[in-house]
Amino acid sequence: MSDCKRIRKEKLAESCTKVFQAAGVPKVQAGIVSDALITTDMRGIHSHGVIRAARYIDCIMAGGIIPTATPVVLTETPATAQVSAAGGLGIAAASYATNLVIEKARKCGIAVVTVNHSDHYGAAGIYSLQCADAGLVGFSMSNTCPLVAPTGGAKATIGNNPFSYAAPGRKYRAILFDICMSMVASGKMIIAAAEGKKIPYGWILDSQGNPTDDPNEIYRDAIMLPFAEHKGYGFAMMVEMLTGCLGHAGITEDVHSWNTVPGRDADTGHCFIAIDPAALGGINEFRSRVDLLIDRMRATPVIKGVKKVFYPGEIEFDKEADALANGVPVPESSLAELRRGAKLVGVELDF
Amino acid sequence: MSDCKRIRKEKLAESCTKVFQAAGVPKVQAGIVSDALITTDMRGIHSHGVIRAARYIDCIMAGGIIPTATPVVLTETPATAQVSAAGGLGIAAASYATNLVIEKARKCGIAVVTVNHSDHYGAAGIYSLQCADAGLVGFSMSNTCPLVAPTGGAKATIGNNPFSYAAPGRKYRAILFDICMSMVASGKMIIAAAEGKKIPYGWILDSQGNPTDDPNEIYRDAIMLPFAEHKGYGFAMMVEMLTGCLGHAGITEDVHSWNTVPGRDADTGHCFIAIDPAALGGINEFRSRVDLLIDRMRATPVIKGVKKVFYPGEIEFDKEADALANGVPVPESSLAELRRGAKLVGVELDF
Repeated sequence: MSDCKRIRKEKLAESCTKVFQAAGVPKVQAGIVSDALITTDMRGIHSHGVIRAARYIDCIMAGGIIPTATPVVLTETPATAQVSAAGGLGIAAASYATNLVIEKARKCGIAVVTVNHSDHYGAAGIYSLQCADAGLVGFSMSNTCPLVAPTGGAKATIGNNPFSYAAPGRKYRAILFDICMSMVASGKMIIAAAEGKKIPYGWILDSQGNPTDDPNEIYRDAIMLPFAEHKGYGFAMMVEMLTGCLGHAGITEDVHSWNTVPGRDADTGHCFIAIDPAALGGINEFRSRVDLLIDRMRATPVIKGVKKVFYPGEIEFDKEADALANGVPVPESSLAELRRGAKLVGVELDF
Repeated sequence: MSDCKRIRKEKLAESCTKVFQAAGVPKVQAGIVSDALITTDMRGIHSHGVIRAARYIDCIMAGGIIPTATPVVLTETPATAQVSAAGGLGIAAASYATNLVIEKARKCGIAVVTVNHSDHYGAAGIYSLQCADAGLVGFSMSNTCPLVAPTGGAKATIGNNPFSYAAPGRKYRAILFDICMSMVASGKMIIAAAEGKKIPYGWILDSQGNPTDDPNEIYRDAIMLPFAEHKGYGFAMMVEMLTGCLGHAGITEDVHSWNTVPGRDADTGHCFIAIDPAALGGINEFRSRVDLLIDRMRATPVIKGVKKVFYPGEIEFDKEADALANGVPVPESSLAELRRGAKLVGVELDF
């Protein structure tokens, strides 16, 4: 982005953590949330980076998110757990659940942890990659309030349900895949709106089901369309089933929008699954095989006008490395939101 | 289909089982394979029904599939297993692995079973629905020989990797989702070719990367395109990672085409994951929640020209019920292949 400001990671993290602490979030959790948002900006996914900070604080101030909440294990076996986020920050609860699913998968070979009474958990890929960095295959997903129309539908009755997986390599850090179920993520509309830009037709319908190129419709009950028609709809149903149904969280309309209803427990659901390749023939063999798969994709001849075939996550890892070396590029629209959040809790930022 | 013949399920199963037995497949396995193919025809997915029988027999006769092979557990923990199909029929091995993953998930809450040295396993949904019918959430996936170009690629370097999940309801049998990673399944091209029909542009590229409407290109190294660009590519990678990499099966080009190389162990990989909702708050609560999710999708207002919003699997379940009541509708092209298979092993069919 042309209007990005480069800020050193440590400086950004310190400021962001201070803002969340001032909002009543304990220091450790404030650090976890800041780190997730900043890492997401580092990977170039600015729609889910620090731009979200102010909105989390809106929810805290409106009483919809309890900054001091501690996750509670509702039911547990060696390979499974059902966790309640107890109305706390989604990122803090998701981080807790990810640590738990890693621990369980290492013991049992595979594990699943669901979370309910949670809220927006940032970028899904944060948690799946945490599994991969621990040497496991990781899956991360969350439902959202209804934003997408099922195939043939004229109303948004299912969430935009982010889904991510990651798998560790040896030569390569990991395969990392992180998507939502609509043609594009809502964050892209939010950024376009903040920057005063139009969006292409076909991304969303307005609340009445008409085509539009105005990203501000996202604030006026726009209807998103699923990718690849019934395929995107079917994957949205998979995530809803594993989060809302299996996790005993809100299902579709019972998930409250953290954007439009900041004062209520969103009852968002998450699901995390981890598999330990050590239980299935060994981690070394697995890592080599992931490297081979990546190498083969990268070696694919390209069509005209295309420079190279990327593996899932490659672009994000390159950006992360650049941000680490040269500072995190933060768009002005993201900084404006971070400043708004800081102002809400009386913190002064020097950028 | 207009040129479908209605044949009673039992009669079709008896004939199909007899054909596989004549090819050297033990009676129990012959019954399992026949049942999977016929059930798939009953659900209207003729591309993966009895039309495939003759090709399995081609592989058996060419030595690429061992009809008497017995699956072997290579490594095992309570929640995991790595199985070798030992070069046998994919459907028989997948059925074995599905029973195993169900048994393990009931004990541990979640389980994963991978399969290598296998072959084409028919419709992915057979196995996920078997889990759902047993009261579990089920996932089923398989890699294939390279058929799809990764995003930006001019060569088919990754499989068309079918993926399915299913989840049981109470009022509704299940949610059942079964897709492949290309714009359309190769079986659809095979049927169009058998019927002498054209296909729409955009489904495939010819082997040189040019657009085509000739379904016969599928027999001449056609390149399939992934759905939703990087999203379909990313899901294809997920399946390849869980089957080829995690299952120690062939990866991409190391999987041999059962269509073009019938005389070799295809080394296809499968992966099955099952979750027992009983371990996560109870099966009754889960079934009710799945019903609620389905009810909400069905209640979505429709766009102009659309009659109703279906839930994933609804169309297939309706067709299955009709086929059970009124006979299985088998396309002439499928019957022709079944007759060819019967002739190869000297069995006479009376339809």
